[in-house]
Amino acid sequence: MTRTSTEDGTPGTPASSGTPHAPTAGGGAEPSVTATAVRARDAAAELAPLPRTARDAALLAVAEALPARAAEIVAANADDIARARAAGTPDSLVDRLTLTTERIAAIAADVRDVVALPDPVGEVVRGSTLPNGLELRQVRVPLGVVGIIYEARPNVTVDAAALCLKSGNAVLLRGSSSAYASNTALVAVLRDAVAGAGLPADAVQLVPGGSRESVKELMRARGLVDVLIPRGGASLIRTVVEESTVPVIETGVGNCHVYVDEHADLDMAVDILVNSKAQRPSVCNSAETVLVHAGIADAFLPRALAALTGAGVTVHGDPAWQRAGTTAGAAVVPATDEDWGTEYLSYDIAAAVVPSLEAAVGHIRRWTSGHTEAIVTRDASAARRFTTLVDSTAVMVNASTRFTDGGQFGFGAEIGISTQKLHARGPMGLPELTSTKYVVTGDGHVRD
Amino acid sequence: MTRTSTEDGTPGTPASSGTPHAPTAGGGAEPSVTATAVRARDAAAELAPLPRTARDAALLAVAEALPARAAEIVAANADDIARARAAGTPDSLVDRLTLTTERIAAIAADVRDVVALPDPVGEVVRGSTLPNGLELRQVRVPLGVVGIIYEARPNVTVDAAALCLKSGNAVLLRGSSSAYASNTALVAVLRDAVAGAGLPADAVQLVPGGSRESVKELMRARGLVDVLIPRGGASLIRTVVEESTVPVIETGVGNCHVYVDEHADLDMAVDILVNSKAQRPSVCNSAETVLVHAGIADAFLPRALAALTGAGVTVHGDPAWQRAGTTAGAAVVPATDEDWGTEYLSYDIAAAVVPSLEAAVGHIRRWTSGHTEAIVTRDASAARRFTTLVDSTAVMVNASTRFTDGGQFGFGAEIGISTQKLHARGPMGLPELTSTKYVVTGDGHVRD
Repeated sequence: MTRTSTEDGTPGTPASSGTPHAPTAGGGAEPSVTATAVRARDAAAELAPLPRTARDAALLAVAEALPARAAEIVAANADDIARARAAGTPDSLVDRLTLTTERIAAIAADVRDVVALPDPVGEVVRGSTLPNGLELRQVRVPLGVVGIIYEARPNVTVDAAALCLKSGNAVLLRGSSSAYASNTALVAVLRDAVAGAGLPADAVQLVPGGSRESVKELMRARGLVDVLIPRGGASLIRTVVEESTVPVIETGVGNCHVYVDEHADLDMAVDILVNSKAQRPSVCNSAETVLVHAGIADAFLPRALAALTGAGVTVHGDPAWQRAGTTAGAAVVPATDEDWGTEYLSYDIAAAVVPSLEAAVGHIRRWTSGHTEAIVTRDASAARRFTTLVDSTAVMVNASTRFTDGGQFGFGAEIGISTQKLHARGPMGLPELTSTKYVVTGDGHVRD
Repeated sequence: MTRTSTEDGTPGTPASSGTPHAPTAGGGAEPSVTATAVRARDAAAELAPLPRTARDAALLAVAEALPARAAEIVAANADDIARARAAGTPDSLVDRLTLTTERIAAIAADVRDVVALPDPVGEVVRGSTLPNGLELRQVRVPLGVVGIIYEARPNVTVDAAALCLKSGNAVLLRGSSSAYASNTALVAVLRDAVAGAGLPADAVQLVPGGSRESVKELMRARGLVDVLIPRGGASLIRTVVEESTVPVIETGVGNCHVYVDEHADLDMAVDILVNSKAQRPSVCNSAETVLVHAGIADAFLPRALAALTGAGVTVHGDPAWQRAGTTAGAAVVPATDEDWGTEYLSYDIAAAVVPSLEAAVGHIRRWTSGHTEAIVTRDASAARRFTTLVDSTAVMVNASTRFTDGGQFGFGAEIGISTQKLHARGPMGLPELTSTKYVVTGDGHVRD
C-alpha cells in the first residue's frame, strides 16, 4: 500500500469546501456526530474480542465487494468529479479524486495485502513470572475507535478502514466534502461487506455532516473516540492538534533537509539531493532544504545547481548559493527566513552553506518539522554525530529522504507518518494502531 | 521506588492553594514559564547525546548531595509545614509533606536505585536490513522535555527528576504551592549536583509562579514541552487533559472493580476483596466497587459483609446487599449511581449483585476509569472471557487490584500509572519516558 504512504499536503481543512450541513444541535437532541461515535464505541467493544479469522473474513468480503460494486462507486464518484470540475478544480486534483474500475480493483488488492499482514492483536509484548508467582503479560489490544480526518483521495477511505479493521478498531471516517459522494458509496460497500461477514456494520462509519462543526464535534468526542489521525495538509493538521481534546497523532508535515558534509562523495551527494527533492516533490518525505558544508561548497554548488536546474528545480539560495548561481549563470532566487520554514511540496528548494556539521544541525533544529533529515558523508564520525544530534523521526545516512515510508521500511502498510514523539514516531503500521493491556494471573495473591 | 508508585488522589489542582505570583505577561516581555521551557529545551538538546555514564554520574552526585544538604532542605520544609499547620491542614497531609533527615536519606537511596536500572536510551527496538540493502534501526531516544504537575509530596520532586535524567530528558517540575519552599530547596540541590557533574543545570527546573496562570502557560508550551504528566487527584488530571495543547499522559485515577464470579473460591474472594479495598484505601489501585454473581450471592454476601465491616469498610450496597445487611445485622448504606462512579479513596466500597459475568463487564465498562479490574473465579473460561472483554489498563485474575504498580510489576521505578491508551498504558517506567528515532544507513541509496 505504498502509494498511500505519503500525503500530498494539499492545504486547507476539509471544511474549507464544506457543504452547509450542520449536525443537529440544541434542544436536547443528540448531535449526529456524537451518536455516530457512540455507535462506533459499541462496535469497538464487539470487535475487540474477535479472533483474527473473523476480522480477516470481513476484509476479504470487502475485497470481493469493491470490484463487484464498482459501477455504483464509479457513478457516485462521477458526481464528485462533476462538482469538482464545475468548481474549477485543477486537473491534477481531479485526477486524484477519480475512481475507475481499475483503480477500485487496485484498492481491493491492497485490502487483500492487509489481510495477509501479521495480526498485531494479542501479541504478548512483555511477559514474566514475578517473584511472588504472579504471571504478568502485556498484550496488544485494539485502540478502540480511531477517527481519521483526511483530504480528497477517496482510496484513503478504504485503506484506513482496512487497517483499522485488521487491528480490531472501529473507524470514523471524515473525508473531504469534495469526495463526499464517493466516500458515501465506498462506506456503503464496506458496511455491507462487514455486516455480511458477521461483524458490526458500525465498525465503519462516515462522520455525518460536511461542516466545520462536525469536525469540531469529532475533536471533542473524548471518551468516545480513542485517537484522531489527521492526514493531509499542514493547516488541517495544525487545526486538529490545537483544538482536539481527543488524543491526536500528528502526521506527515515534512520540511526535510539534506546536509552535504565536508567529507561527502560529491557524485553521491548530487544523486541523493536530486532524488530527495525531485523524485516526487509533492510528498512529505521530499527534501525542502539543502545545507552544504563550506569546505566543499566551491566544488559542490556548481554541480548541484546544474543537477537541480536540470531536474526543473528552482533554488532559493543564501548569498553563497546566489554567488555560485551568478558564476554558473544559473538563476538562484534569494532565500528569506520564510524559505527555511516552508514545506514547498513543489520543484523548489531552499539552499544554504553552513560552516560546520554543528551549524547544519542547529539550522535543522530551528526549522525542521521533525520528519526526515539526511547526511551525505564518507566520515563515520560525522555520520554518528549527525544521527545523534538530529532529533527527527528519521535520519538518513547516505540515502534519500524519500525512504521514510511504511512500505519502504517493510511494514506492509501505513496509516500515516507520525511526526510526534508520543505513541508512534515515523511510519505507522498495524502495531501503532494498538494499545496494550496487562493481564495478571494469580492464585489468590494479595499484597502484603 | 514503590512507595511513590501510587498517588493519593488528593483532589484539587495545585493552583487551588496557589500563591498570587503571576508570570510576567504582556508588553512583549517573555513570560517566565515559557523562558523556563526554552531553557529546558536547550538543556534537553545537550542531554540527548550524552552516554549513560554521564547521566549516571549526575544522579550519583544527586544521591550524594541530598543527605549532605539535608539540613537546608529540612529547614525549608519547616516553612511549608508551618504554613500548612497555620492553614489548618490535617495531620495526615502534614505528614505527607514532611521531610526529615531519614526521609531524605531514603529519597537518596531511591535515586541510587534509579542509577542501577537499565538505560533505555539507545536501545534498538527494531532493526533489519531492507531488501535494497538499507540498514534500518529504530532506536530509543529521550522524549526531550517532560513536564510533571503534581501535588503535595515533595519526594516526587526528586523521584521524577531522577527518572527523567536517567532517561535523558530535561524536566520541568510544577509542584504544589504548599510544598514550594521544600521543592525550591530540593531543586537547588539537584541543579547544583547536576551542574557539578557537568550536565546542564537547566535539565532540572522548577516552574516559576504558584498561580493557575503558570500551569496554563505550561499547558500551552507546545513545541517546547514534549509531554505533560499530571500526577494527583482527578480534578487536576481532568484540567490538564482538557486544557493542554502539549501532549498529556493521563495518570492514576482508579475506580477499580473486583468481580466475584459464580465459580469463585469464596475464601480467596474474601481475601482478595478485603486486600483490594482495605490494604491501602488511599491509592489509585485500591478497589472501589465489588460485583458479585447472583449464583453465589447468598453464600458470599454474609461473609464479605463480615470481612469488610471487620476491616472498617462501609458498604454502599444495591438492594441485594442491603437485604444481606439486614439479615446479617450489618449496616449497608443504599448505593446510588454516584457510588458506582466514585473513587472513594477511603474505607468505603460500592457493592452490587449482577446476574452474569457479562453484566459485570457491562457495569465495569460503564463506570470504570480504566485502571484495574479483578475477577475471582476457578473457571478458566470465565477468566478468559473477563480478561478479553474488560478494556482496562490491567486485568487481574485471582489477584488483588493492588498489584498494578511499577514496583510490583518489576519495572524498578515508576513515574505514574497511565490510564490512557496512547503511548503508555499502565505503570510507566523508564522506557515510557522515551520516544524512538529511525536511523537508516545506506551507501548512496536513492528511490526509484
